[in-house]
Amino acid sequence: MSDQRAIGIFDSGIGGLTVLAALRARLPRETFVYLGDTARLPYGTKSPQTIQRYALRAALTLACHDIKMLVIACNTATAAALPVVQHALAIPVVGVVDPGARTALARTRGRIGVIGTESTIASGAYERAIHELGPDIEVIGRACPLFVPLAEEGWFDYPVTREVARIYLEPLSRVGIDTLVLGCTHYPLLRDAIAGALDPGVCLVDSAQALADEVVRLLDANHGASHGPGSARVLVTDAAQRVARIAEMISPGLGGNLELVDLHQ
Amino acid sequence: MSDQRAIGIFDSGIGGLTVLAALRARLPRETFVYLGDTARLPYGTKSPQTIQRYALRAALTLACHDIKMLVIACNTATAAALPVVQHALAIPVVGVVDPGARTALARTRGRIGVIGTESTIASGAYERAIHELGPDIEVIGRACPLFVPLAEEGWFDYPVTREVARIYLEPLSRVGIDTLVLGCTHYPLLRDAIAGALDPGVCLVDSAQALADEVVRLLDANHGASHGPGSARVLVTDAAQRVARIAEMISPGLGGNLELVDLHQ
Repeated sequence: MSDQRAIGIFDSGIGGLTVLAALRARLPRETFVYLGDTARLPYGTKSPQTIQRYALRAALTLACHDIKMLVIACNTATAAALPVVQHALAIPVVGVVDPGARTALARTRGRIGVIGTESTIASGAYERAIHELGPDIEVIGRACPLFVPLAEEGWFDYPVTREVARIYLEPLSRVGIDTLVLGCTHYPLLRDAIAGALDPGVCLVDSAQALADEVVRLLDANHGASHGPGSARVLVTDAAQRVARIAEMISPGLGGNLELVDLHQ
Repeated sequence: MSDQRAIGIFDSGIGGLTVLAALRARLPRETFVYLGDTARLPYGTKSPQTIQRYALRAALTLACHDIKMLVIACNTATAAALPVVQHALAIPVVGVVDPGARTALARTRGRIGVIGTESTIASGAYERAIHELGPDIEVIGRACPLFVPLAEEGWFDYPVTREVARIYLEPLSRVGIDTLVLGCTHYPLLRDAIAGALDPGVCLVDSAQALADEVVRLLDANHGASHGPGSARVLVTDAAQRVARIAEMISPGLGGNLELVDLHQ
């Protein structure tokens, strides 16, 4: 069995291009339609109600592209809106939180740190997902609001970035976490600065790879993979020059191919 | 003659509360209605088209509050959307750029630096406003995208903030600016870190005071001031806890009184 329909990927912006890249590497014959809500980003500083409204609108827009599955590549949107979007769509909807939590559980010796936007950390979504499978695991969350702007500035391993990482991660280091979930799609860009602020033995978990495993599993179980030539379109709701610049930084070759769409609001 | 109607103030978020405070200090008998578009902030990273759409929607919402004048307290919105909003409304609309440019011109000896969001600097709005009145003045612009998140983190005079200020302002220092326009309503919160990165003689221009002068002049010329008891309402389109926290930081006493509104989009 095979299903030629596309896989939709939704993100608040373009950080989720790291997830698109991981998916394309694993599933080169699939068609992907990515939608980055760059006109309303960032979601991480907004309330759950606003995030749900935005995520729903974006999901319904992608649903009109005849997709067989929707991937929410944004941690903030997954944490605040996954059930709402799952309820609204008749196709499988996968978020980044559960796969990331499962990977962290597989690696930890008992103490997991989670970093993300203010909204993701306030939601407690990772903590809940980890405790559902491992109730005795200790989970320590920390919001890191400056990491996204630092990554978007391209200051991946500046002294300033290392100092910010030291300030944010000091409380996690002090309690001796052994595993750290990078709970925001931008954070892998700062991997060196983040790792430098932690004990060398701490394992960093990037959800993108775990999410790709989950999508492969779901394709097998529900829909069958595509046998097409494989392709990806990237739609954005605002096409400021910086969006193209950052897209190019995350996924070389993509910056020049962004398509502007209006979500009709 | 007197006009009891309110003065509307529009900002992309809550940085413009610094402008509201300056206006209330000068005009204690006026009624103010402030609208912060916190559901869509920041504007500074978005395209002129998107900013114009958002600004117009916010301005029309405020126009329904029976206002006699609209103040655009956001540098980014002024730079991208002032003429569009002026064209749409039948009342006077004032932005922050012209008053700030005039103040800088009154103080400079010939070389003005302007700092702001990426969108404000890319628009060249300050440069145009300054050159209209002083064509021989040298204007050097510099986008400082990390200043707003640093201010919102409350890291006003952290070593990290001073180091970021040093990196951003070094090119302006090198060419010997004598005056610096703080072209974003958040930047006065970082005044010490910014001043510390410049020669002690450089004059910092905060547009809020210049804007208040302009509003007083317009009230006298067009509408008459109010003789009421004076009051201020603060409306926001998203009421995340951090919005209240930052509002409280900028304007103590305000954080608990935000009213949530929907712009019906």
